[in-house]
Amino acid sequence: MTVQPDTPSPDAAARGAALLALDWGTSSLRAFLLAADGHIIAARASRHGIQALPLPGTAGFETALEALTGDWLAAVPRLPVVACGMVGSAQGWREAPYVRCPAAVATLADKAAVAETAAGRRIAIAPGLLFDPADARPDVMRGEEIQIAGALEQAPRLAARATLVLPGTHSKWATVEEARVTGFSTAMTGELFATLSAHTILGRLMEGTAAAAEREAAFAAGLEDARASGPGDFVRQLFATRTLGLTGRLPGGALADYLSGLLIGHEIVSGLARADARAPLALVGAPALCTRYQTALSAFGRPAAAVFDNTAPAGLFAFARALGLLS
Amino acid sequence: MTVQPDTPSPDAAARGAALLALDWGTSSLRAFLLAADGHIIAARASRHGIQALPLPGTAGFETALEALTGDWLAAVPRLPVVACGMVGSAQGWREAPYVRCPAAVATLADKAAVAETAAGRRIAIAPGLLFDPADARPDVMRGEEIQIAGALEQAPRLAARATLVLPGTHSKWATVEEARVTGFSTAMTGELFATLSAHTILGRLMEGTAAAAEREAAFAAGLEDARASGPGDFVRQLFATRTLGLTGRLPGGALADYLSGLLIGHEIVSGLARADARAPLALVGAPALCTRYQTALSAFGRPAAAVFDNTAPAGLFAFARALGLLS
Repeated sequence: MTVQPDTPSPDAAARGAALLALDWGTSSLRAFLLAADGHIIAARASRHGIQALPLPGTAGFETALEALTGDWLAAVPRLPVVACGMVGSAQGWREAPYVRCPAAVATLADKAAVAETAAGRRIAIAPGLLFDPADARPDVMRGEEIQIAGALEQAPRLAARATLVLPGTHSKWATVEEARVTGFSTAMTGELFATLSAHTILGRLMEGTAAAAEREAAFAAGLEDARASGPGDFVRQLFATRTLGLTGRLPGGALADYLSGLLIGHEIVSGLARADARAPLALVGAPALCTRYQTALSAFGRPAAAVFDNTAPAGLFAFARALGLLS
Repeated sequence: MTVQPDTPSPDAAARGAALLALDWGTSSLRAFLLAADGHIIAARASRHGIQALPLPGTAGFETALEALTGDWLAAVPRLPVVACGMVGSAQGWREAPYVRCPAAVATLADKAAVAETAAGRRIAIAPGLLFDPADARPDVMRGEEIQIAGALEQAPRLAARATLVLPGTHSKWATVEEARVTGFSTAMTGELFATLSAHTILGRLMEGTAAAAEREAAFAAGLEDARASGPGDFVRQLFATRTLGLTGRLPGGALADYLSGLLIGHEIVSGLARADARAPLALVGAPALCTRYQTALSAFGRPAAAVFDNTAPAGLFAFARALGLLS
């Protein structure tokens, strides 16, 4: 169950460690051993997300943490530990209630929750963010606020003003001004793609293979349909994922790409309409997904100015510094 | 398994029968015994939809038909039989390929397929419709073309020009001109509602009860969000189904109503943008669903001029007449 991409001896790994940073979500726990300058000394991951703990209750969190990082913690007994993600939700180790926008990393530190192990070790957990404007529905994030802090840590030039796009199951489009998240919105793009493919009639014709060029063309067609859409059109355009297959316009192996283009395209149409046109746009997320989004953003004439891989370690480092845990 | 809302003796029921009309879909088989003037003498239904037949292959269709209507067929040996719905699909008894728009009921009769039982009884099956315009994605219907024919049979004034809305799993918005269906589009509203409620994070908070007034207000809020939406906004607005619950703005028992309003609202925003503003609008479908759509259409300032319950029997009667089966 445990993935160890980097396995020096615990003592060697922990030598020079200044922080243990945990990105603890629903389906996985990722641990990063960071040096005083923020660089990653070692990284590990396990499947002990908060919905897949080895034991029920608080003991499950402690056991999962010990299983993945016990040797590191033993080697550096006073190593500070910080965490972000669903571990701070109502179903987590200890709840860190949502903080209202605007919020900087210092705000996250002010409102951090603290879990404590039986042995007395403290884990500072970052709160999520709530955006609750008068003129729109409320929105929430948990985990992405740390990724945003990490992007700003890695590229301070974005702190003045930027739109950060974090694609995923629940994509986030966040507005940053003066190093604070001033607002954001969630598009359920990834979850819609997975659910529509697995649980609706649209998935039935998604079979067989298609050439790379056919798949790219299908993705582009989905983007183009989204770009040409008017209000309300999504629930109607969706059915083309079936009819393009039924009528032989697209091979079964390219229908998922059409659906992906349609979904990502709708997310981008809506997101760009709300984004500050003068602010640079940056993508933060898994490289393959960011590549797909960069293709889409370019098709819409707004390519991202910067693309970041996982920025959670850098964000947790900034969070720990704001907490005063890095001496 | 068999529902018999009307159970006179077979002889009495069949006396005066001029047509056996079958509405044979994926999950049910509905049979109507019609008189020469089109009125319904008797109706029965079974769960032997084409995906739930009692036997595999062609025998399954024959067995299901015999189980539900064998006594009627025995009582009137030369009774004509017509059918519509998925029974004419590639997975049906005999395929009746899609016919291109524009199409009138006479077009359906021209392109009917014929299935034949082992005993030599012929069943005329209506084809579905294909709408394949140069400037939009292709679309298909199967079964609704007969419901539309039925609405025009019951209200000939709509034949000149009308927009027919058939809400359901896959809602259809059809344009009728001079008794022909000239175009249509499909919104996956019903399937989206079911799938999003059952298989995404949005269903998690849908629990408990809510007062009728709270549910109505939630439905209206969903409609209003749809009405205020811009291009692409659906994938983003959807998440409010969760956040309105998380923040206590809506009780868990009203979240499904919000989602329903949002989905139906998007369908209507898109549908009305394409509908001829001068043509009357009519709803065709199950009464409870039509009531919900009528509330929504009224909120958008375009109430339906007419509302029809199941028009399949009337449509099958018109189809049989066009086939010359009614002497």
